[in-house]
Amino acid sequence: MSDTNKESYVVGVDLGGTKILAGLFDNSLECVGTAKVSTKAQRGLETVLTRIERCVRDAVDEADLSLKNVRGVGIGAPGAVDFENGTVLFAPNLEGWKDVPLKKELEKRLDLPVFVENDGNISVLGVHVAELKAKPRNVIGIFVGTGIGGGLIINAELFSGFNHTAGEIGHMIIDVNGPKCGCGSRGCFEAVASRTAIFQRIKAGIKDGEKTLLTEMLGENLEDLRSGDLRKAIRRGDKFVSKVIEQVAEYIGIGVANLVNILAPEVVVLGGGVMEALADEMTSVILKTAKEHAMPGTMKNVEIIASKLGDSAGITGAAVLARREAK
Amino acid sequence: MSDTNKESYVVGVDLGGTKILAGLFDNSLECVGTAKVSTKAQRGLETVLTRIERCVRDAVDEADLSLKNVRGVGIGAPGAVDFENGTVLFAPNLEGWKDVPLKKELEKRLDLPVFVENDGNISVLGVHVAELKAKPRNVIGIFVGTGIGGGLIINAELFSGFNHTAGEIGHMIIDVNGPKCGCGSRGCFEAVASRTAIFQRIKAGIKDGEKTLLTEMLGENLEDLRSGDLRKAIRRGDKFVSKVIEQVAEYIGIGVANLVNILAPEVVVLGGGVMEALADEMTSVILKTAKEHAMPGTMKNVEIIASKLGDSAGITGAAVLARREAK
Repeated sequence: MSDTNKESYVVGVDLGGTKILAGLFDNSLECVGTAKVSTKAQRGLETVLTRIERCVRDAVDEADLSLKNVRGVGIGAPGAVDFENGTVLFAPNLEGWKDVPLKKELEKRLDLPVFVENDGNISVLGVHVAELKAKPRNVIGIFVGTGIGGGLIINAELFSGFNHTAGEIGHMIIDVNGPKCGCGSRGCFEAVASRTAIFQRIKAGIKDGEKTLLTEMLGENLEDLRSGDLRKAIRRGDKFVSKVIEQVAEYIGIGVANLVNILAPEVVVLGGGVMEALADEMTSVILKTAKEHAMPGTMKNVEIIASKLGDSAGITGAAVLARREAK
Repeated sequence: MSDTNKESYVVGVDLGGTKILAGLFDNSLECVGTAKVSTKAQRGLETVLTRIERCVRDAVDEADLSLKNVRGVGIGAPGAVDFENGTVLFAPNLEGWKDVPLKKELEKRLDLPVFVENDGNISVLGVHVAELKAKPRNVIGIFVGTGIGGGLIINAELFSGFNHTAGEIGHMIIDVNGPKCGCGSRGCFEAVASRTAIFQRIKAGIKDGEKTLLTEMLGENLEDLRSGDLRKAIRRGDKFVSKVIEQVAEYIGIGVANLVNILAPEVVVLGGGVMEALADEMTSVILKTAKEHAMPGTMKNVEIIASKLGDSAGITGAAVLARREAK
């Protein structure tokens, strides 16, 4: 172990399309301080960089420490990342960031080593290290939020492939004639099963005259609709929202079956904001659909579980990365 | 190297739904004798076992050698395989074989060590060892024949995953409302892009009044239709067959894009009987469609190539397996 120094903390950052989370982690990978700010990507790159810096400083301050106590910072970014250079190659959910030298810019601002990875990769790493006690050798992480991110543990290591882009499961096409995706294709996994897809289905249903408690709760335009509202509506007996969530859970089950057929993992971990809010409503449908669509034999002893880390998967994995990489 | 003994040959067997191929390979992995028999799975397990044995003996005899010169036998089987026990768990294209102890049965008949793997895994291993000189670390093999088999090289090793079933790419669902697959799901990769799918589309088209040279060549019922006939018809100007093959190539391109998004390999190898017959007609459409549907960045410097090994990929990979495993 290189981190026996008690003063050796790391910060893990989860850079999302709508919010930035940061967590300060001690040597035992305990989170001892957190901070959260909205991303405001629409205000431009400088704003986002400043807000990441502020969020890191706030998390450290929260634990009554200073950046001097910190060995390094890990960041999970929502898009294709060049890990070697710490560059975000392409991030559609950050106003289309292209070739942003995130590592270099933040190292300048924080005077600390910074390491950047894809957010799905980071999250599955966090779950593998902090949650999966049996340390399975092959794990698929499926993170359902604004989009769908993924990450792969293969032979007990994070696997990012040749172009460091492995795990882009959100753009696996499962319904070739389905709804248009932000990437330009049709019927991508995230075009049929992300929060964005759920909200589109609900809004389209309302236009077609479907009745839902959501309009009572939030008004006709469903302003500030969140995943938690869907759970509330379902628990109050909203049949339309139940139906939409069941259909989306079926799509997630098909995505799981595809990935199990391709990769034969021991464990599939489901996480992200949608799963966190709706795990009770979705998990049994996901399991049933996955079993129906996977090849005979492939699902034997495969565990499909909802992560308990929730939103902390990203900051935890980013902290693991920083611990591994910072000298 | 453990195989410096000049007398040390191995046999590679490709057990398919319609035919069995066997090849005798010397120390340099040169094929010095081959044999081929039809499978006749409908006659029952005993018949198939006897025919495999005969095919192995014929390939050895072809090179004026005897089984005494052979160190071991590798077999690629079309289905889910338990490598440790050498059991075929499930093989829909072999009249639904279930839990067949192929290793044990053939070792009894041949008095030689026998090793059984999935045919897609074996084929990508053969291509990796015998054809890809640069030894890329991550390779996806897509083998389009009666069905679609797949195999994965990950971090320079054959990857078969937890249940030894990784690479079942033929049952990746890409058109959830598409045609029914033999496995029970709808719109699996092999339900829209295998030879079976091509023939179904052509027969359905003829019923709907499409004109094709194939009926002139083979009669109204298209008896004995083979992939080579499709190539002949296209080269003689058959617009309907051209159109069907173009659509199928587009589906293959979508399958390639999905797998590149998920696994970020250096190389995608296309093989199998359909690709062998129609590579010239399909490759450019596959490339174009794959590029259109993969995420920006993921296709950078990724090679998509048609294997030159053709039908020998399976026996070559099976020989590589036997060399590695036989003491």
